[in-house]
Amino acid sequence: MRSYTEYLWFNTSERRAFVNMTSDCERILEASGITEGMMLVSAMHITAGVWVNDNESGILQDAMDFLERLAPFGRDYRHHRTGEDNGDAHLKNLLTHHQVIIPITNGKLDLGPWQTIFYAEFDGKRRKRVVVKVLGE
Amino acid sequence: MRSYTEYLWFNTSERRAFVNMTSDCERILEASGITEGMMLVSAMHITAGVWVNDNESGILQDAMDFLERLAPFGRDYRHHRTGEDNGDAHLKNLLTHHQVIIPITNGKLDLGPWQTIFYAEFDGKRRKRVVVKVLGE
Amino acid sequence: MRSYTEYLWFNTSERRAFVNMTSDCERILEASGITEGMMLVSAMHITAGVWVNDNESGILQDAMDFLERLAPFGRDYRHHRTGEDNGDAHLKNLLTHHQVIIPITNGKLDLGPWQTIFYAEFDGKRRKRVVVKVLGE
Repeated sequence: MRSYTEYLWFNTSERRAFVNMTSDCERILEASGITEGMMLVSAMHITAGVWVNDNESGILQDAMDFLERLAPFGRDYRHHRTGEDNGDAHLKNLLTHHQVIIPITNGKLDLGPWQTIFYAEFDGKRRKRVVVKVLGE
Repeated sequence: MRSYTEYLWFNTSERRAFVNMTSDCERILEASGITEGMMLVSAMHITAGVWVNDNESGILQDAMDFLERLAPFGRDYRHHRTGEDNGDAHLKNLLTHHQVIIPITNGKLDLGPWQTIFYAEFDGKRRKRVVVKVLGE
Repeated sequence: MRSYTEYLWFNTSERRAFVNMTSDCERILEASGITEGMMLVSAMHITAGVWVNDNESGILQDAMDFLERLAPFGRDYRHHRTGEDNGDAHLKNLLTHHQVIIPITNGKLDLGPWQTIFYAEFDGKRRKRVVVKVLGE
């Protein structure tokens, strides 16, 4: 069994953003030399997630609007008593989930034709990290 | 370490449906010969998910109603400017998540007594695929 | 490849609760002897989840309030025709997801500085189980 780990850093200029990280994951897979196994892609923060969906700008905006509708920014969240203003980002993160597993088959990310891996930032404008770990052989 | 991969196809007669795929997963586990490890069950589409819950018809209908209440069909989603009408399905997919990992212990799917694995279709009536990959030994 | 499995039991005094299980996971990792790999932490029930977020009491209360707002207790869910009253718990579970994967690197849970692993109980006051499986070497 082989294991390979890299950390990716993101620093978005917007507070909320989806960032396509599929080519990063492809590069890491190649660096790993692993051809059969699983790749974990997991945000290391509590206000960021990872989402697999279509790289179509309308969907990405629909998803952000949807998360904002369910978990609006600027409400009187209890978390704000600590001095923070990002209570919404924790709830958006709950809905999106913070990680995905990509199957690795025949040396490729075994994704469907429209599946794209996105870093989902809900409280950005600062450096944040994602761990990518490949397990297999 | 051993690895085994199969692809399952679904073609639901309804636009939205839950399909019990537990016995498919049991058959794949047996075919894999793996007795300790993990099984990834992951939809390869962006409008379908995988959900582990109870095989009770009321719950399944409650869950579909719930997803419809949060992400209604037929709204004016931005994605529809591409000519699609399935914007709701992408959001239902976000909430449900598109994959699960089943632990494999002593040659069995290590599920609780009521846990059932469902394919969750949100934009059906066409052939769609799920990848099942077992890793272990 | 090595594999190690433990089952954790929870019995919360409240119907709904978050229980910090990070130190349990650390202990299990040590018992496994595995230093590189992945740890699956997965609820074996259909009314309980696992969530990774910040160990800040305001966030935990915000998250419970949020889940209650989206999936309220006491509605006339179809599931209640079976005699149950926990239809809301199945929907809260759908949103939270029932499992996470923790990367294992250099013999440690490879979590970000604020990431804490919580058992999320939505229908407690009885014994319920989580499977923790470590795969790696």
